[in-house]
Amino acid sequence: MTSDSAIGIFDSGVGGLTVVHAMLERLPREELIYLGDTARVPYGSKSAETVARYSKMSARFLLSQGVKMIVVACNTASAYALDELRASVEVPVLGAVEPGARAAVAATRSGRVGVIGTLGTVRSGAYPRALEAAAAERGRPVSVTARACPLLVPLAEEGWLDDEIAEAVARRYLTGLRDEAPDLDVLLLGCTHYPLLRAVLQRVTRELFRHEVVLVDSAEAMAVAAREALAQRALERTHGESRLRCFVTDDARIAEVAQRFLGRPLDGVERVDL
Amino acid sequence: MTSDSAIGIFDSGVGGLTVVHAMLERLPREELIYLGDTARVPYGSKSAETVARYSKMSARFLLSQGVKMIVVACNTASAYALDELRASVEVPVLGAVEPGARAAVAATRSGRVGVIGTLGTVRSGAYPRALEAAAAERGRPVSVTARACPLLVPLAEEGWLDDEIAEAVARRYLTGLRDEAPDLDVLLLGCTHYPLLRAVLQRVTRELFRHEVVLVDSAEAMAVAAREALAQRALERTHGESRLRCFVTDDARIAEVAQRFLGRPLDGVERVDL
Repeated sequence: MTSDSAIGIFDSGVGGLTVVHAMLERLPREELIYLGDTARVPYGSKSAETVARYSKMSARFLLSQGVKMIVVACNTASAYALDELRASVEVPVLGAVEPGARAAVAATRSGRVGVIGTLGTVRSGAYPRALEAAAAERGRPVSVTARACPLLVPLAEEGWLDDEIAEAVARRYLTGLRDEAPDLDVLLLGCTHYPLLRAVLQRVTRELFRHEVVLVDSAEAMAVAAREALAQRALERTHGESRLRCFVTDDARIAEVAQRFLGRPLDGVERVDL
Repeated sequence: MTSDSAIGIFDSGVGGLTVVHAMLERLPREELIYLGDTARVPYGSKSAETVARYSKMSARFLLSQGVKMIVVACNTASAYALDELRASVEVPVLGAVEPGARAAVAATRSGRVGVIGTLGTVRSGAYPRALEAAAAERGRPVSVTARACPLLVPLAEEGWLDDEIAEAVARRYLTGLRDEAPDLDVLLLGCTHYPLLRAVLQRVTRELFRHEVVLVDSAEAMAVAAREALAQRALERTHGESRLRCFVTDDARIAEVAQRFLGRPLDGVERVDL
């Protein structure tokens, strides 16, 4: 494992391609190996035990490819399995939760942060813990309101990204959040799928809150954190161009959905059994 | 394996409890063993190969419990894996597609049938084939229009069964069907989840079509077919009361969602690894 080795990224499905998209922009010399566990997607509605088991299988596959770092793109896997993964592998492991929480704390003025995510991510309590830790580092308090939004993932996968149905769904979920925390000024998008719904989420927050609400995207925050982590360890690749290799555990409908998340066609996807 | 043995039922998740519900009503002396593959749910968006592999694992588990018959509650598994399952096990295997198709052919007057289901069920072409076979048996032609409705499963699992969002989603999917086949008079609900959305689907078909459209529920048709298949083979249990044992591969959120599908609380669910 050297600075020329690839970065491994895994996700429950294709949603993590939003993280790949952000990493390709910020790490233009790195080779990325992406694994989407599309045969068992989604993780968001499943138990901590199942998600941890699947995550370890994904990490093992990436290690077998000789990666220098593992990025857990899936927020649910980050929320449920990060500590276990870190304890069991030799390379640095970067999750979605810490970078997202730091970015949210940096962005809030009111100290009131909202988080939306899958059932698993919200149930784990990982974001409130990480937000409180990030706020404590800065010596300022933070108050967190989290809400599970199970229908946003299938909406994004269906490609209904910005229409009256997406808006009605977003309004229903975010109204609950607004009623509970009317003064929140940061909304953390705690799921890889949500950046696709950014326009409708931004419009609905404008409608529901009387002040500006900043949407913080954990995909962006992860790309920044990955660059920092590589620099700290002198593991940056300093020559060549970025490259992406993609593996999935089931190949139904990949090309069509992947384009939506990556922003460009995905070619040469390989199928693997974990 | 005797007439006292249990009937095994498997599904990708908890949706198949709509079939259990129908079977408990029509087979009041049978013991049912249900297996929901909730660790890998859903099957509807996955490939034929993956669905067939998972289905065989579920069937093997049920056989290890000594069942006298296997009912494939999941329409996608029925569409993709039924022939393979039948070829590989000794007990009768009943799927969702044939009973649903027969019931639809019996109900249509115009000979124009609509089918809604998951991406996998629609892509497999299993319903058009079964509907044409059932129509040929009766010596009458049938014309089939099928449409995938991926968002209906997550809607039903979220419990948004009959509100303005469910209605808008149903209207979007069924408008496409109406434009393609304005004279259809039967709509086959080709997924275990759809009976939960029956009220909204009925209301929207009334709004979109100018004549009555009969909704045919494959869960009901399967319960009838299971009773017939047992009678033909003299495998009916003739004494005692119905009993239900439930196994799942992941136990997150089971109790809450199961109640919606079964119509009563589900107790004593056991977790198994396949």
